[in-house]
Amino acid sequence: MKTTTMRIHTGSHRGVTDLTTEAASFVRDEEDGLLNIFVPHATAGVAIIETGAGSDYDLMSIIDELLPREDRYRHRHGSPGHGADHVLPGIIAPSTVVPVIDGQLALGTWQSIVLVDTNSDNPDRTVRFSFLPG
Amino acid sequence: MKTTTMRIHTGSHRGVTDLTTEAASFVRDEEDGLLNIFVPHATAGVAIIETGAGSDYDLMSIIDELLPREDRYRHRHGSPGHGADHVLPGIIAPSTVVPVIDGQLALGTWQSIVLVDTNSDNPDRTVRFSFLPG
Amino acid sequence: MKTTTMRIHTGSHRGVTDLTTEAASFVRDEEDGLLNIFVPHATAGVAIIETGAGSDYDLMSIIDELLPREDRYRHRHGSPGHGADHVLPGIIAPSTVVPVIDGQLALGTWQSIVLVDTNSDNPDRTVRFSFLPG
Repeated sequence: MKTTTMRIHTGSHRGVTDLTTEAASFVRDEEDGLLNIFVPHATAGVAIIETGAGSDYDLMSIIDELLPREDRYRHRHGSPGHGADHVLPGIIAPSTVVPVIDGQLALGTWQSIVLVDTNSDNPDRTVRFSFLPG
Repeated sequence: MKTTTMRIHTGSHRGVTDLTTEAASFVRDEEDGLLNIFVPHATAGVAIIETGAGSDYDLMSIIDELLPREDRYRHRHGSPGHGADHVLPGIIAPSTVVPVIDGQLALGTWQSIVLVDTNSDNPDRTVRFSFLPG
Repeated sequence: MKTTTMRIHTGSHRGVTDLTTEAASFVRDEEDGLLNIFVPHATAGVAIIETGAGSDYDLMSIIDELLPREDRYRHRHGSPGHGADHVLPGIIAPSTVVPVIDGQLALGTWQSIVLVDTNSDNPDRTVRFSFLPG
């Protein structure tokens, strides 16, 4: 298995960060196999969605409705509403798998792999790519 | 890795399409490994649920509440409310993994692998099966 | 592929059961690869969240809001509101993948692998671990 970690500077930005270029570059010299994208954080997730036409914003807006940033969470560290960030990976998992064919991500035309990060307290994030050939 | 794509005709049907028979047939001549089920679409997901006792309908009904088909989305192509379809794969991911033991899907008695498709604008869908032996 | 199943006694407890110790122990003698955690049940999911600081409770509380235990489901077996349990794996999938490096789960500091079980009718659960080396 080929595996590496990558640092992503999200700053105080709450939202979606596109990882597709980095993922494509990671598997370019491989043949067929499965690529796992994993974020080793308890307040972030990985999704595969369209970016660039508003859906990244729409996803964040829905997430803020489903996981309201209110004073209701038992988890009480960090900024007000930060408890919601800790529920996020229950809904948007921090792990996904993308098939790779002949060194290419087998994504659909409109799919991008993204980091979803609602947590503005954490300016730097790590992403792990692991490629299992087969 | 053994990989193939399959075409699913969903027509204008919004809902759940069972893929279990096709997945089982794809791995029948294999031994042990992991099967990845991946839909290369930005408006569909893959789930593992019970079918045939109403839960497929219940899942769609909950999805329509969580992702209301209203004029609220930044993504503005397609039918009214189509923006919701683009948020769907953030909640129901387009990728999942099922263990295979001796050529059999290691599903529970009541589990089926399904395509979840809220998008009636897209009558044909592709599903990719990829089996990584181990 | 190395694979095994494990029995978890959840009793009538609705909630989150930590599987991290068992998963870590399962891969301890391995090298690099991907670990799949799979629950062969139609009313349970697997998540990767922080435990021990309230977020497990917060996740269950959000789930009960998103999937209300009301008399609204077509699935009508079991206790009142049990239809919600059957929608759960559509939102929290019963399958996830964690990278393993040199026999160690590559989890972040605050991440735990958990079984999410809203179904108090089912006192015993099975979890399958499958490790694909690479």
